[in-house]
Amino acid sequence: MINCEFCNLSEADKKWLLFENSFWMVFLADRQDYIGRCIIVCREHCTDISKLGNEQWLSLKIIISSLEKMLENELQATMFNVSCLMNDAYKNKNPNPHLHFHLRPRYANPITIGNTVFTDKEFAHHYNNKADVQISDTEMQIIFDRLKSCINRYFI
Amino acid sequence: MINCEFCNLSEADKKWLLFENSFWMVFLADRQDYIGRCIIVCREHCTDISKLGNEQWLSLKIIISSLEKMLENELQATMFNVSCLMNDAYKNKNPNPHLHFHLRPRYANPITIGNTVFTDKEFAHHYNNKADVQISDTEMQIIFDRLKSCINRYFI
Repeated sequence: MINCEFCNLSEADKKWLLFENSFWMVFLADRQDYIGRCIIVCREHCTDISKLGNEQWLSLKIIISSLEKMLENELQATMFNVSCLMNDAYKNKNPNPHLHFHLRPRYANPITIGNTVFTDKEFAHHYNNKADVQISDTEMQIIFDRLKSCINRYFI
Repeated sequence: MINCEFCNLSEADKKWLLFENSFWMVFLADRQDYIGRCIIVCREHCTDISKLGNEQWLSLKIIISSLEKMLENELQATMFNVSCLMNDAYKNKNPNPHLHFHLRPRYANPITIGNTVFTDKEFAHHYNNKADVQISDTEMQIIFDRLKSCINRYFI
């Protein structure tokens, strides 16, 4: 759809694409305010959950399950916050939301990525929506490469 | 399950129950920080999305769609933030989460409930997780009665 950011992703925008199937794309989020934070984007221009077909919805459950298993095993995530917000689209006079989900891994214990020890200061509480990015570009690349290299073990 | 709050709801706890089927219960949330905020609770003790069966997951989509349509029509909600967080369970040394979803209606325009005009000050931005309760007990009862009286038009 014209004027939809998610419908017009360039190859550069897909830099952090971890996985895609017929229904969904999974990206490592640009903003790593929580380590391993991902965004699950509908392939089709779909405005909200109610417009999804059953195949898309069932695929989403498999995607969430696979992603959580991968982030538990590879990054030692403890649990996950999943949300479907889409507030940004409503900053526009003519909102044109494109369905996507945020998945934030949460960590009971500190984890080390490259040279940085990351502590989830708000663990067991609501995520901090204004949290700073926690890691460098180099460390983000380390995470992406680690996840991408084992993606086929978790996603079918 | 013993020691699970959601598995041991009393009749008093079900005061704000709007709808239930074999898989889910829908409550008007105790904390009306966003007007019409609801909680969708799994009937069975299920710890996370990956453990849900397909029937439960498909029913959840119908529940979300029905609830959103009702809140759009009856309370003039503009859009919705849906989240699955379950942070509180991890305050416990032996976490025993019980799957539930939060659904927050968001409002582009002010709405009036009883004598109170409610404005969604953060519309088009992330919800305020520390927002105060916006309405009185009387106004909450008005909302509950209004939704409960028309529930069969939206839920099957």
